[in-house]
Amino acid sequence: MNRKLRMGMVGGGPGGFIGEIHRKAANLTGEIELVCGAFSSSPQKSQEMGKLLFLDPKRVYASYEEMIKTESTLPRGERMDFVSIVTPNYLHYPVAKLALEHGFPVVSDKPLTIKYNEAKELKELAEAKALPFAVTYVYSGYPMAREARKRILRGDLGKIKRIIVSYVQGGLARPRKRKIWRLEPEKGGIAGSIGDIGTHAEHIARYFTGLKIGELYADLRISAKGRKIYDDGDILVHFENGVMGVITLSQIASGEENNLTISVYGEKGGLIWKQQEPNSLIVKWNNAPTQIIRTGRNAPELEREALKAAFLPMGHPEGFIEAFTNIYRGFACRLKKIIFKENIDCNELDYPDIQDGVLGMAFVEAALKSSEEHRWVSPGEL
Amino acid sequence: MNRKLRMGMVGGGPGGFIGEIHRKAANLTGEIELVCGAFSSSPQKSQEMGKLLFLDPKRVYASYEEMIKTESTLPRGERMDFVSIVTPNYLHYPVAKLALEHGFPVVSDKPLTIKYNEAKELKELAEAKALPFAVTYVYSGYPMAREARKRILRGDLGKIKRIIVSYVQGGLARPRKRKIWRLEPEKGGIAGSIGDIGTHAEHIARYFTGLKIGELYADLRISAKGRKIYDDGDILVHFENGVMGVITLSQIASGEENNLTISVYGEKGGLIWKQQEPNSLIVKWNNAPTQIIRTGRNAPELEREALKAAFLPMGHPEGFIEAFTNIYRGFACRLKKIIFKENIDCNELDYPDIQDGVLGMAFVEAALKSSEEHRWVSPGEL
Amino acid sequence: MNRKLRMGMVGGGPGGFIGEIHRKAANLTGEIELVCGAFSSSPQKSQEMGKLLFLDPKRVYASYEEMIKTESTLPRGERMDFVSIVTPNYLHYPVAKLALEHGFPVVSDKPLTIKYNEAKELKELAEAKALPFAVTYVYSGYPMAREARKRILRGDLGKIKRIIVSYVQGGLARPRKRKIWRLEPEKGGIAGSIGDIGTHAEHIARYFTGLKIGELYADLRISAKGRKIYDDGDILVHFENGVMGVITLSQIASGEENNLTISVYGEKGGLIWKQQEPNSLIVKWNNAPTQIIRTGRNAPELEREALKAAFLPMGHPEGFIEAFTNIYRGFACRLKKIIFKENIDCNELDYPDIQDGVLGMAFVEAALKSSEEHRWVSPGEL
Amino acid sequence: MNRKLRMGMVGGGPGGFIGEIHRKAANLTGEIELVCGAFSSSPQKSQEMGKLLFLDPKRVYASYEEMIKTESTLPRGERMDFVSIVTPNYLHYPVAKLALEHGFPVVSDKPLTIKYNEAKELKELAEAKALPFAVTYVYSGYPMAREARKRILRGDLGKIKRIIVSYVQGGLARPRKRKIWRLEPEKGGIAGSIGDIGTHAEHIARYFTGLKIGELYADLRISAKGRKIYDDGDILVHFENGVMGVITLSQIASGEENNLTISVYGEKGGLIWKQQEPNSLIVKWNNAPTQIIRTGRNAPELEREALKAAFLPMGHPEGFIEAFTNIYRGFACRLKKIIFKENIDCNELDYPDIQDGVLGMAFVEAALKSSEEHRWVSPGEL
Repeated sequence: MNRKLRMGMVGGGPGGFIGEIHRKAANLTGEIELVCGAFSSSPQKSQEMGKLLFLDPKRVYASYEEMIKTESTLPRGERMDFVSIVTPNYLHYPVAKLALEHGFPVVSDKPLTIKYNEAKELKELAEAKALPFAVTYVYSGYPMAREARKRILRGDLGKIKRIIVSYVQGGLARPRKRKIWRLEPEKGGIAGSIGDIGTHAEHIARYFTGLKIGELYADLRISAKGRKIYDDGDILVHFENGVMGVITLSQIASGEENNLTISVYGEKGGLIWKQQEPNSLIVKWNNAPTQIIRTGRNAPELEREALKAAFLPMGHPEGFIEAFTNIYRGFACRLKKIIFKENIDCNELDYPDIQDGVLGMAFVEAALKSSEEHRWVSPGEL
Repeated sequence: MNRKLRMGMVGGGPGGFIGEIHRKAANLTGEIELVCGAFSSSPQKSQEMGKLLFLDPKRVYASYEEMIKTESTLPRGERMDFVSIVTPNYLHYPVAKLALEHGFPVVSDKPLTIKYNEAKELKELAEAKALPFAVTYVYSGYPMAREARKRILRGDLGKIKRIIVSYVQGGLARPRKRKIWRLEPEKGGIAGSIGDIGTHAEHIARYFTGLKIGELYADLRISAKGRKIYDDGDILVHFENGVMGVITLSQIASGEENNLTISVYGEKGGLIWKQQEPNSLIVKWNNAPTQIIRTGRNAPELEREALKAAFLPMGHPEGFIEAFTNIYRGFACRLKKIIFKENIDCNELDYPDIQDGVLGMAFVEAALKSSEEHRWVSPGEL
Repeated sequence: MNRKLRMGMVGGGPGGFIGEIHRKAANLTGEIELVCGAFSSSPQKSQEMGKLLFLDPKRVYASYEEMIKTESTLPRGERMDFVSIVTPNYLHYPVAKLALEHGFPVVSDKPLTIKYNEAKELKELAEAKALPFAVTYVYSGYPMAREARKRILRGDLGKIKRIIVSYVQGGLARPRKRKIWRLEPEKGGIAGSIGDIGTHAEHIARYFTGLKIGELYADLRISAKGRKIYDDGDILVHFENGVMGVITLSQIASGEENNLTISVYGEKGGLIWKQQEPNSLIVKWNNAPTQIIRTGRNAPELEREALKAAFLPMGHPEGFIEAFTNIYRGFACRLKKIIFKENIDCNELDYPDIQDGVLGMAFVEAALKSSEEHRWVSPGEL
Repeated sequence: MNRKLRMGMVGGGPGGFIGEIHRKAANLTGEIELVCGAFSSSPQKSQEMGKLLFLDPKRVYASYEEMIKTESTLPRGERMDFVSIVTPNYLHYPVAKLALEHGFPVVSDKPLTIKYNEAKELKELAEAKALPFAVTYVYSGYPMAREARKRILRGDLGKIKRIIVSYVQGGLARPRKRKIWRLEPEKGGIAGSIGDIGTHAEHIARYFTGLKIGELYADLRISAKGRKIYDDGDILVHFENGVMGVITLSQIASGEENNLTISVYGEKGGLIWKQQEPNSLIVKWNNAPTQIIRTGRNAPELEREALKAAFLPMGHPEGFIEAFTNIYRGFACRLKKIIFKENIDCNELDYPDIQDGVLGMAFVEAALKSSEEHRWVSPGEL
């Protein structure tokens, strides 16, 4: 292509966090430019945001419906090439649906929806339309997460036996002054932390090992009086192939920032990755010293997936935005290959797709059911 | 006292690990000397061990029965003052029982027994005889564990909400060439890892927070073919006072050494302690920077319990043997106070006692029952 | 301004590292767009690069002279607003000079020049023209570096006594197959590592503490046979105000990545920052526990300079590109304020300027002289 | 031997730190017992200390002269086998001299003396008498220090090029209320920190690499008004064989505990060891991931010297006392071999001897001279 891909955004108004991340990530690819947006349910705020982004005011829309419909009438060389959805969770479904119906590929923040059925419906629609659909499970965008996946799948650790995922934050430890949509069940989903951070935990476990959950037993809690969503929980997990595990989730872990840690143990070795120290991968062995695998474009012994995901030489720290960028890079590659028919190889440019989003929602609904009914539930039952 | 306390030892023959630790720890107190032992079920090996320890051969016995009976006939100024038990688990009970019956205080390795009922019986006997009885939950002997307990109990973290304990080792990840008693259910107990490391996990959680387990749901596994004891498991835990938690246990976590980590979160802050980095205590806050509390006789802001447990100035690493020594120091203080009627203050010289041993076995039996019956079990039911 | 600032770039052709960083950083500000470039001494490669960047081929130039001269003839609303220089070191001077002479503000990579006199000349020119000039000492762009500076300057540590800077890399530990300009004295400068990483070390010490070097004694070495530039050295430093220090530099420290560590000690406390773990700042106290200050837009107890430099909430790692972006953000603010006369406040948006570049070159020349003459040299002598 | 070795101690009265460490370390060997002492220049305090140690009051002496002379008249099977010297520095020399003259082997704390000439004299005397003499450079007693030495000497890192030692403490950062002998030049030596921690730094560099100092350039400072000893300094070092290095020393580094770090770089890799995290050894490579070598009796890939120095299995932290114990273990082995003519192998039981002590004092005097005369000094000149 002799131009950048054109992105339209829904959500991401002034002061929001995740919209800004999506914009920076898309931007950092060097292949995508933001051309239009419906940034807020308030048309005025949407215009304000557009101005801050130096957008043409005519392409700053009052609603996502208006944006999708109007853009779809523009000539192909002008209209947006895909939609990026960064709204509160409950809007992911209707926006994505409308976008797909009008033929636009989609990047959606996670969780994909607030209901499993909605997720399945989107998947069917995306498949019917043959449209790429990314769900931004950002942690799989880190080079060391990609390296971990490759090393586990190529058998370094021997037969996998045990998975431990812990994702703890302190953000909900104390009453919030400001009203936030995440705490409203109708906007963020009743699942609360299970959807917000639990889906990341499920995804990273599956991403690292290729293993789906066979059945789970969840003990979910609402720790604060008057709160309406789950903010804490532990989930016993039996993965496929007899692999045992546990997922610990909390947003009331006072003092914790964004502490996601995954440990995978096989018969020969174990591998640990900590999101807060993302540029290192720790590999422990039964019979040899521990190794610290480090990211970097010039790092020794890395797989191509990791090398491609690294922006900088070793010792130059990379972070969350760069990981996010890698999701957009993978999506952009598919867009060019599938929609614009470029003859390019996207194999080593991974991104989480709608099937990942669907499995995330299956996990959420299984956890809710298990916790309410005090029994083991298989996501496959749903 | 104008002499050292006299210790007799059962178990701890040539090549054993834990007996050597007990001897070094007792030794390091500067208040205890080993005077006799029945170090092995083989009288010859027992004598060999005695020789290595420069003991009088007459006080190296062929069996624990002989030792306890013979020593009890010696005059008080000569006979052993207490018995230290470092045998395989299944012998803790009969040796301790015989020792108590002959009026000897006891230090026993953990788990206290292999059956909960045996533990309760020992407790009744020790109480009836008013004899001090220590169970060597060594991790509570670290200065930073003592500091953690004091800080949590004095309310630093606010109301406690959440406990996460993870104790993972890799020692059983691969088939063992050498036969070891821990893998024989009749010698080490069917509970396996649950008794071996699980009791440490239960104790450290209770030690830090003062909270007992209200009910638990255990998912225990035997990961290796032909193995007869549990070597892996996760346990959902509801502590007293509505505190939620999880205990993750594994001895098949390839590459892990002796990785015990406890995290306790309250409404205001969280506290993390890692046994493998025992001289630091991490305290995280909702509204202030993280603190690294460090051990040391001269460390600022430490509680007296921690200062007394520290042997060295800051920056001079202390370890497992020193922690073990602190258990013996506490026990020695009680011995001098209770048995020898010295007028001394032992308040800040903590040690885990037989009640701790009993609660450990209640935890083990509840976990076994829960896992077998797939239901929540309260240790109080037993 | 109702448009983005327009950047022209000199250097940064295909395969280069630092040009790509400058482009990404400028881009990430959201306020700057690349509009033209002379990316290579080969006009063809320059065009290739321009195509990859989706630039108008007419604004991809065959030489920096052509670019600067042509752009200066364009109307103000169209021509580039400033020049970014990312060439090998020896070209910084002529390119910057020509740019300044044509009225263009400049961002230059470091070291500012390869001769101290060149640096001084550029400074006089920039001042005479009243043109903003940034030198990309990137490490001062990290939020925690900004926090460190503020804390030290506001007196947290008490009177400063001691500074230790260590900057070690392994990149030159072994013979290089590929010819690189850094190893050619005429292109990178004879100072080699002293210019390349030493200027960073000098700058970060001065940035943290506000202290200039009073005198220094350097022991510089060329470790590899046939090499023509210094690749290793230690420098004793007497800073202003009787503050003592040492700077350790090496590019032959096998296995090290980009390990810059600075420790500053005052009468009350010490502060340590490690570039490879940039999101934490360690503060140690004589009489209180160590603190770990963490970056984040929502981090407690941070100064406004640090909060403004943070892109993300706590626990979402930031890295080198984000630090680089902060340099460009500060420069962009000055450009808008000084050149475009916007009424904005840039006080908390720091960037290293030409005076920093000059002091860096004074340090380099003093170190070379000291090492050759085996005596203490004051950069003020020069 | 069918008995423990008998130790007499000079110094180590009530409240002292290092005497207690020596006693615990000797004790922990399981091969040494304290039988007599002159613990204080006050005969009464000496007796008090003896009582706390449960010693026979007849063997608690009023002075070291009395102790050495009296003990030398006792029959060999009863008298002390060696003397341990834990006095202030200035007494090391006269006590050691008298002990050697009476035929007693010696363990002395470091620095060996306060004058280089005294050290040489002691060495000649010890050699003439063929008496073992240990100097307790404790850090060489850590298993990972021994492993480091072996790996470097066997060539793992390739040809050694670069050594960086940093030893920083904060203990003298603020005025002391209590009078301490270390700050009195006549008792601790004018060298102050250079003797106290500098000798450790010199020794550990030599221990790791086998390299002596060819010449050095020292910049020593007295940072506090009214202080009479050096408390801070940096030393440029040219080791043998063209190996370059720097030693950074400070006891005014506020907030630092006992932070000794050594980094050694060769053509292939680098090795870093930190005394405050002594159970890990970090090995970095030009072309492979970093390794964390961990201590433990059962640790994979360790040299026999390290395995023998480890007391516990992996994951059971060891510390300063255990390292100290290893010095005594090595000395005890030589005592049995040389004095008691046992047929045993001490090859893998290292200990620092009087030659190490002499080289330490040569380093101290060269540093003093260099700093005063502002020139490079070779310890060989002295």
